[in-house]
Amino acid sequence: MFGICETSLMKSKNFVVGVIGGGQLARMMHPAAISLGIELRVFSESENSSAKSATTKVGDYNQLNQIQEFAKELDALTFDHEHVPEKVLSQLEADGVNVRPGSSALIHAQTKLVMRRKLQSLGLPMPQWKAVSKPSELEEFINQFGPRVVVKTPIGGYDGKGVRVISQSSEVFDWFSAIESFGGELLVEEKINFSRELAILSARNPSGEFRTWPLVQTTQLNGVCAEVIAPAPGNPDVKLANEIARKVSESLGVIGVLAVEMFETADGKLFINELAMRPHNSGHFSIEGSTTSQFEQHLRAVLDLPLGETSLKNNFAVMLNLLGVDQSNTFVERYKSVMAQVPNTKFHSYEKDARPGRKMGHLTITGDDLEEILKEIRLAHTLLTK
Amino acid sequence: MFGICETSLMKSKNFVVGVIGGGQLARMMHPAAISLGIELRVFSESENSSAKSATTKVGDYNQLNQIQEFAKELDALTFDHEHVPEKVLSQLEADGVNVRPGSSALIHAQTKLVMRRKLQSLGLPMPQWKAVSKPSELEEFINQFGPRVVVKTPIGGYDGKGVRVISQSSEVFDWFSAIESFGGELLVEEKINFSRELAILSARNPSGEFRTWPLVQTTQLNGVCAEVIAPAPGNPDVKLANEIARKVSESLGVIGVLAVEMFETADGKLFINELAMRPHNSGHFSIEGSTTSQFEQHLRAVLDLPLGETSLKNNFAVMLNLLGVDQSNTFVERYKSVMAQVPNTKFHSYEKDARPGRKMGHLTITGDDLEEILKEIRLAHTLLTK
Repeated sequence: MFGICETSLMKSKNFVVGVIGGGQLARMMHPAAISLGIELRVFSESENSSAKSATTKVGDYNQLNQIQEFAKELDALTFDHEHVPEKVLSQLEADGVNVRPGSSALIHAQTKLVMRRKLQSLGLPMPQWKAVSKPSELEEFINQFGPRVVVKTPIGGYDGKGVRVISQSSEVFDWFSAIESFGGELLVEEKINFSRELAILSARNPSGEFRTWPLVQTTQLNGVCAEVIAPAPGNPDVKLANEIARKVSESLGVIGVLAVEMFETADGKLFINELAMRPHNSGHFSIEGSTTSQFEQHLRAVLDLPLGETSLKNNFAVMLNLLGVDQSNTFVERYKSVMAQVPNTKFHSYEKDARPGRKMGHLTITGDDLEEILKEIRLAHTLLTK
Repeated sequence: MFGICETSLMKSKNFVVGVIGGGQLARMMHPAAISLGIELRVFSESENSSAKSATTKVGDYNQLNQIQEFAKELDALTFDHEHVPEKVLSQLEADGVNVRPGSSALIHAQTKLVMRRKLQSLGLPMPQWKAVSKPSELEEFINQFGPRVVVKTPIGGYDGKGVRVISQSSEVFDWFSAIESFGGELLVEEKINFSRELAILSARNPSGEFRTWPLVQTTQLNGVCAEVIAPAPGNPDVKLANEIARKVSESLGVIGVLAVEMFETADGKLFINELAMRPHNSGHFSIEGSTTSQFEQHLRAVLDLPLGETSLKNNFAVMLNLLGVDQSNTFVERYKSVMAQVPNTKFHSYEKDARPGRKMGHLTITGDDLEEILKEIRLAHTLLTK
């Protein structure tokens, strides 16, 4: 197999990108792939996944032989999620597959302790943290940084799962009991008294080209992203956020989109919370808001194509997640009223079965007047959810 | 089968829209359908059509039974082209299929003489025209409105095919010989001495809601659309263009997108040239340029969903078609250089085999400075075609 740089110059056929995972992120790569003439092949967990329009194989991503079969003839292999085992990824790389991002980068998004150790070595701003293997170590940390601290399972958490805010070690008794399944250690972090959360999205290609989108403000609800405002209002430290994104992306060897979620304190300090190496909820605004969406940019980056312009097309873009409210409302049956009353709403369905709290879709409105946008998008959200 | 209004209120499942024809227009409906959570099913002529990502059936659209089979369980049936025979469409309507636009509207886009007669009865501005069944009638028209006139086959023409500018009847001798295949008549029109061409795009839904996009300037090359500037520079008669669009759409009972192509003369008069009742090349700019693209709007209209905002997001949007330059350049293999040098270019591939003059894709750039956009997009075009 040749590297991408060589093949892209020679090829007369279209590029082929494989995605492991059939969630909404893979789904939203499909429109971008159609525009660019890229063949998207998704390896999904089920026939009826959110990314079914591009699904070419259904299987279990833990099974090396299934992924190997899927990875044949791909120009690049990338991901909808971080759950593919590291040993599967390194074998694919040994086979010559262009795994993007590579396993040595992705490990930082898969294992929070690896991430913390690496970011610490880079001198990047973070909450105080510690790896603890027994309750007494956790109690010690609570005594030093408590009364309340954040405990995280180093692997397998997302959207608030695997995260607990506690004040005594007995509140994570069950995790200590199963500690071997987490690699023998839990991560405990200082609970930052933040005034808000921010996220910086960037992309990097194998040629080393790097671009960021505007710094955004994110609002979480029960650990799940609920609202994103681009750019973040006020006077956040955009320069520092951009430096953080570049340093993480380059030092960890990220290829594709990187999201860095951060806390901002009242005095304007930034603390890195989480990383994701794929298109991210905090970047959905870019579909309508930016000249190049995070989904298009991710495809360009993993194929080592030059990166597109990321500036906002209007002054502001606001995104609200549509989280499932009950077992029946898929929002689609209600969007007629939104279309009628808020005709500049952009509605995105993920075609998922309804479940309370589940990410079912999102809304975006772009424009030049933030107050007006917020009024409109909150009306649209109310029409869909009440 | 119930009407759309009833089902849309009741349904808990997604909408299903069928499209006859697997060209680039069906292809570009797919991203819009994915966002809205609409299942798109395309009836294509071949396995490897431009709309293959959404193709669910391959067949011959002249065969009623094949279309009947395809049309089962659709909330609406619409089109990528105007070539489905009227008798097939009326039988589908008799079966209860929501054919959008309906056969009684579509006939005006299928048969140019029907269109001319109807527009004349509406008193809309057009070139002088006549139905001629023999050379002597054509000569008479040439004597009156020549020396050069435009002869068109009433059916089957598109992209400059079926159109000839002539000065004597012998130049369409072959068409007179085959006149029965055109329904016994040819259309002859006065050759308007226009200063430029304009197009007005609109959409209408069964509830009667109607919206136009900004009036655009189009430039044809050998009868094929080459460049579109939105909005049309200068001071065109936007009010009249909007009135024409509304009158045509309402009087002909159009459902979905309608494109009205017009000539503008030096003194600012408008003359209707052609109609199309589907998304149209003159509206591709709307994918990035408008809040609601023509492809999303068409889907909303045929499903009788409320129509979206159509205003431009920036001052200008410019689109250039990528017409095949030889048998091998599909543009995809060259887009790396465009991405590198013009990072705000939006590239759209139709994934077609290369053929000189064929519509292979298009480029769009949006922004606030028209001169700058034109400079950039022409550079991008040159990089792809030279």
